[in-house]
Amino acid sequence: MSIVVLAGGVGGSKLLWGLSRELPAAALTAIVNTGDDLELHGLSISPDLDIVTYTLAGLAHPVQGWGIAGDTFRCLELLARYGLPAWFKLGDQDLATHIFRTQALRSGMKLTAVTEAIRRALDVETRILPMSDDPVRTHVLVGEGAVQAIHFQDYLVRRQAAEEVRGLEYRGSARANPSPEVLEALAAARAVILAPSNPLASIGPILSIAALRDRIISGKVPVLAVSPIVGGRSLKGPSDKFLRWAGVEVSPAGVARFYHSLLGRLDGMLIDGADADRRGAIEALETRVGVAATIMPGPDEKRAVARATLALLEEIGCPAPRS
Amino acid sequence: MSIVVLAGGVGGSKLLWGLSRELPAAALTAIVNTGDDLELHGLSISPDLDIVTYTLAGLAHPVQGWGIAGDTFRCLELLARYGLPAWFKLGDQDLATHIFRTQALRSGMKLTAVTEAIRRALDVETRILPMSDDPVRTHVLVGEGAVQAIHFQDYLVRRQAAEEVRGLEYRGSARANPSPEVLEALAAARAVILAPSNPLASIGPILSIAALRDRIISGKVPVLAVSPIVGGRSLKGPSDKFLRWAGVEVSPAGVARFYHSLLGRLDGMLIDGADADRRGAIEALETRVGVAATIMPGPDEKRAVARATLALLEEIGCPAPRS
Repeated sequence: MSIVVLAGGVGGSKLLWGLSRELPAAALTAIVNTGDDLELHGLSISPDLDIVTYTLAGLAHPVQGWGIAGDTFRCLELLARYGLPAWFKLGDQDLATHIFRTQALRSGMKLTAVTEAIRRALDVETRILPMSDDPVRTHVLVGEGAVQAIHFQDYLVRRQAAEEVRGLEYRGSARANPSPEVLEALAAARAVILAPSNPLASIGPILSIAALRDRIISGKVPVLAVSPIVGGRSLKGPSDKFLRWAGVEVSPAGVARFYHSLLGRLDGMLIDGADADRRGAIEALETRVGVAATIMPGPDEKRAVARATLALLEEIGCPAPRS
Repeated sequence: MSIVVLAGGVGGSKLLWGLSRELPAAALTAIVNTGDDLELHGLSISPDLDIVTYTLAGLAHPVQGWGIAGDTFRCLELLARYGLPAWFKLGDQDLATHIFRTQALRSGMKLTAVTEAIRRALDVETRILPMSDDPVRTHVLVGEGAVQAIHFQDYLVRRQAAEEVRGLEYRGSARANPSPEVLEALAAARAVILAPSNPLASIGPILSIAALRDRIISGKVPVLAVSPIVGGRSLKGPSDKFLRWAGVEVSPAGVARFYHSLLGRLDGMLIDGADADRRGAIEALETRVGVAATIMPGPDEKRAVARATLALLEEIGCPAPRS
């Protein structure tokens, strides 16, 4: 019986790190967005899986939200000299993960097994599951007039999320199945936590897989979200642009309504103190609200948010096992 | 009309560097062994092409005979942590070459075109041609009793060429064709130089391609070798072990007879002063002998050997264009 966290990259990895320090290893499982996955330079890259794994391994860069702390970029410099695009910052150490993953996938291993091998090699105790072994590729529609569909990483990294969002596609989603490991983890879940990740571009692709979403809906265990919106703004990244496109209010209440509409319920939501005065709109969904300082710059804040999340879970009748 | 050098890795790259400093760029073409090429970690690696290209680009490590000077090994360290074999020392910068080559080959480019793109990106003026676009893989037979065939790089790098050579196979050679570019270069050659590389494991694979060898035989232009043997020993690497296996005397005369038997002629051979007293055995093949200090630790020695090679070519009636 484990707490299952649906997570994107940066916000998800921070909450997961905090929870991993507050819970026994066997009591926590991450289901991670793979809609950002891309093929670049012939390499299979899984940005969200990597930042989650690196963060839990204590290897992640503490600020930038991607890559390994202290990594170098010697390979990338020469790749650029060969005329290959260098907008996606592949560190020298980081490359090893992509090379290993690419070769393992090509040899027939499932992404779930590759992810397991990587986290074990990096001594990560928390189980990390890709949302699916089938490819889902999130594309963002941008542009005035003639709208163009670009890969999410292209939008986020190369174009710095500067353009307004005109649409969103979870390509491959209709044909994607959750892995057996994801279904087993959800069947054994004592609660499901939606991490403070981009609701549309990180949590959205996970919940776009029908059999996965249905398993949560039918699962009856508490569903709790940690708001990625603080004081009307995204904590990090372009969540607000995606929410606006979707007609969702850029507020914890807007996000709560969005998740409620997808899953039919939202049992709890942790919001920041900055939004405490507007908790009523969330409580109107029969959602129990917890209030805490939810910004997580350092390890102390990550553990504090994890503890506040677990306290809220306990309030809604789901005490967590203590480590 | 260009001087064509058949080359393996270290010795070949040194002579080529010297010649590149003594000749106009258009007057020199390298045809390089690809029998050492291997697939490792899903990457297409061409060790001899790389050391030749890096050397001509002024990037090569000055001593070790492979890789880029000052390169780091951060990716390799993490690859090893993922359980991948780390005996083949892939530097971080070096990896860019393999990643670029792998992706280009997979997209349908010929190795010749990939090699051309790499040398141009690295500002190398000398034309570098792989011996073939078809795969040839040199395998070494080793072991007592039950003989085992291993890839040449496995023998050379992982096993440090410690074992006696029981046999040699140029796998794929019978089906391999020289590229059109190689045939054109040989048709336009004013002379063919066999670099001081391993006669059996570096020059041998090139000459094992029948149409390439036949083109040299029928070409009538002077063929000249620079001896890779000095004072009864290999300059670098295990040439002597291969010569002994083949029943070839480990001496310049032995190498001269070997090339003479393959090509029907050897018009000239540059040997080291240490072997000058045994020049008669080479001259008995109607081979003109030049004597010089042929060990090439630094740039001055490389240029001196290049000049001695060109002087010998001139003696046998083939003056080189001067830069």
